[in-house]
Amino acid sequence: MQLFSRLKQAAGPDWTGYVEHEFVRCLGDGSLPEAAFRRYLVQDYLFLVQFARAYALALYKSPTLVDMHNALDGVKAILDVEMDLHVGLCAGWGLSRADLDAAREERATTAYTRFVLDAGMQGDLLDLQVALAPCIMGYAEIGARLASSAPMARHADHPYGRWIGEYAGTAYQEVAAAFAGWMDRVAAIYANDPRLPRLEALFRQASLLEADFWQMGLEAAGPDRSVVRP
Amino acid sequence: MQLFSRLKQAAGPDWTGYVEHEFVRCLGDGSLPEAAFRRYLVQDYLFLVQFARAYALALYKSPTLVDMHNALDGVKAILDVEMDLHVGLCAGWGLSRADLDAAREERATTAYTRFVLDAGMQGDLLDLQVALAPCIMGYAEIGARLASSAPMARHADHPYGRWIGEYAGTAYQEVAAAFAGWMDRVAAIYANDPRLPRLEALFRQASLLEADFWQMGLEAAGPDRSVVRP
Amino acid sequence: MQLFSRLKQAAGPDWTGYVEHEFVRCLGDGSLPEAAFRRYLVQDYLFLVQFARAYALALYKSPTLVDMHNALDGVKAILDVEMDLHVGLCAGWGLSRADLDAAREERATTAYTRFVLDAGMQGDLLDLQVALAPCIMGYAEIGARLASSAPMARHADHPYGRWIGEYAGTAYQEVAAAFAGWMDRVAAIYANDPRLPRLEALFRQASLLEADFWQMGLEAAGPDRSVVRP
Amino acid sequence: MQLFSRLKQAAGPDWTGYVEHEFVRCLGDGSLPEAAFRRYLVQDYLFLVQFARAYALALYKSPTLVDMHNALDGVKAILDVEMDLHVGLCAGWGLSRADLDAAREERATTAYTRFVLDAGMQGDLLDLQVALAPCIMGYAEIGARLASSAPMARHADHPYGRWIGEYAGTAYQEVAAAFAGWMDRVAAIYANDPRLPRLEALFRQASLLEADFWQMGLEAAGPDRSVVRP
Repeated sequence: MQLFSRLKQAAGPDWTGYVEHEFVRCLGDGSLPEAAFRRYLVQDYLFLVQFARAYALALYKSPTLVDMHNALDGVKAILDVEMDLHVGLCAGWGLSRADLDAAREERATTAYTRFVLDAGMQGDLLDLQVALAPCIMGYAEIGARLASSAPMARHADHPYGRWIGEYAGTAYQEVAAAFAGWMDRVAAIYANDPRLPRLEALFRQASLLEADFWQMGLEAAGPDRSVVRP
Repeated sequence: MQLFSRLKQAAGPDWTGYVEHEFVRCLGDGSLPEAAFRRYLVQDYLFLVQFARAYALALYKSPTLVDMHNALDGVKAILDVEMDLHVGLCAGWGLSRADLDAAREERATTAYTRFVLDAGMQGDLLDLQVALAPCIMGYAEIGARLASSAPMARHADHPYGRWIGEYAGTAYQEVAAAFAGWMDRVAAIYANDPRLPRLEALFRQASLLEADFWQMGLEAAGPDRSVVRP
Repeated sequence: MQLFSRLKQAAGPDWTGYVEHEFVRCLGDGSLPEAAFRRYLVQDYLFLVQFARAYALALYKSPTLVDMHNALDGVKAILDVEMDLHVGLCAGWGLSRADLDAAREERATTAYTRFVLDAGMQGDLLDLQVALAPCIMGYAEIGARLASSAPMARHADHPYGRWIGEYAGTAYQEVAAAFAGWMDRVAAIYANDPRLPRLEALFRQASLLEADFWQMGLEAAGPDRSVVRP
Repeated sequence: MQLFSRLKQAAGPDWTGYVEHEFVRCLGDGSLPEAAFRRYLVQDYLFLVQFARAYALALYKSPTLVDMHNALDGVKAILDVEMDLHVGLCAGWGLSRADLDAAREERATTAYTRFVLDAGMQGDLLDLQVALAPCIMGYAEIGARLASSAPMARHADHPYGRWIGEYAGTAYQEVAAAFAGWMDRVAAIYANDPRLPRLEALFRQASLLEADFWQMGLEAAGPDRSVVRP
């Protein structure tokens, strides 16, 4: 079994609490308040900056040249491609690059990104990959599910159709599949059985922090939303 | 002027929002709900584990042998002294070592500790010291103020008298003064003027994360308390 | 004055001992024994692997997005361009990719690369840049000097003409100039005067380790060469 | 089988080349030139500074509180005990603390120490332990062997009797045994079979760098000694 499938299974409700979070459900049916999406967009920009650092750390920690190239692909995907796509998406929502650069990092953003970076620095490349996995794999799962279960997502007037299309699209799905394969190759060497409970705990904690990230977006829509917290 | 005084001044309301937080006020007059203090105690234990790692990182990053000894004093203070004091304090509140080790880290704990660790790893020893300063110096300030402004704090029946006494006491006050002196000596070499705004931003962000830590404790006392959030 | 010029001046004979090393002189006039060049080529390949890690570390440590892009340019230059150029150059000397991957790292290679990586991790981005500078800037200086002072270098039958041409060429000269500019921009914020002696010591030590790297190549040509050691 | 025994066996002649190095043999029979021992003493002081950083890194990287305490014992042993013993030993050889602090790090010292630090930062705690093991375990093995096989070592007039006695003594032998036990406990969780060849390569490289360290000492006694190089 793929390491990712195993981690996901072990995380159980902590995984579903993230990928089926209220924010995600509302994103799918288009009912997500704009304020929530806007806060999410701003924080996701700041998140990407830290994620680029995390992939750079993966490169630094790579034990082989092949791993280094895998990690470099990730850094380039973020800094050369995703960042611009994201800035473009933000522009469509009235958020300029200057707005993004001036924004203050929310605590949920700080918590997740620094947790990943520290887990990676404290442990080895596999620890870093496992801490990154909920983000990379979760977005692929969410994108695919929303695109198929919410056919409206493909309509031109779905407010979040572009976001869903991006993560459901072949390009991103391939990125996620490549990441899972890379993690499996590293795990084949480093994932000793007695170590699995620690990897599972790491994955679960990262999933909880991802759920917090959605929640932080939702709370921009007003205090009422905050009671939805799982 | 001491670097700490300058950072505190620049942080303005973000500093007072931390050292004069509702949690602190209630701790001083004894009105803090026990549930809030208990959650705080558990999370502070998990916090200390990460803080010991941060001081170890300071030792790793120390440019001189003198700095290394300063950092080692910090590691020893946490792992050889504070940890046991804390476990003793917790026992008085019905929390066993097993309870502490089984506890899950709250997100506010994750956010602050990993922010400090990453700031230190990303930057130099001075960055790490500045990120640590709100905790070390803030507790000294809080302890001293509560002990003097709330004379009841010294009464045997004040529920949080032991906590206040510990941070108001000479031993801790000297630890904080020694830390400020060490930070000033490092700053004399590394704190270039154009760098100050970045150090101030780091200090402010760490202060906000400390305030979140109090808030997280307060929220254990029920949802009503959460409206007090600054 | 550019920081690089200042560091070079402070390094004095330790700098010239590196850029005017016997290995370099013989490379210029074509008298370098093939065995020396071949060992150099193999070790420089292993060196590049670690240098890619060092640039990835620079990205991780970058305090701004602009710095991150500068660092990414470096990683890409090494992993996407230089590595292949180098493998091509090696092939011309009868060294296959398999030969390179099977080679054992010489102690001079270990010493310089790990010194740079550790200096960067221990300090901040500027420390890392200063430790990288002797390599990046020194090769530009050597390439330019050999190309101009040894006109034979451009002849088709000069055994090391391709190597000289690569480092004397516009592409590499621009890489070096861009690096110096980047280091100056970072230094404008982080290079406090009292810190300069430490930066100078770092640069000098890295220059000595670069000279050792040449020496290690030279020694492949037999024990007689080892007496040339400066 | 203990991980250390396995690593030692896999290193074969690279291990014996270190623990039975000419420097060690001459140390045992008292024939080691004083100049060689003096250079060794100076460099070992600089080595200890970096080794304290490596143990601090082990603390930072420790996945459990128990590991953290093991690592802290190491830091304290170096900074609070060994350093002073070493300075005392040096004083007996006419080397003052000022001499030690003013000494320039030899390249063999740089190579070994930075290799260990980087291996630890790149990988996990087990990688760091394996890179540290040749030093910690090798000195115990050398001390014990010299004390038993060279009975003269215990004579008051043996020039290196104090050094031998220190590493053959119960205190150091217990430190080494404790380290081996700690490494085994970490290996029980992290030493996956497919990972062993990488751990063996790391141990072997560190052993070679330790042999270089002896060689560097020996070369202080003049060029003739350098031909002994294995």
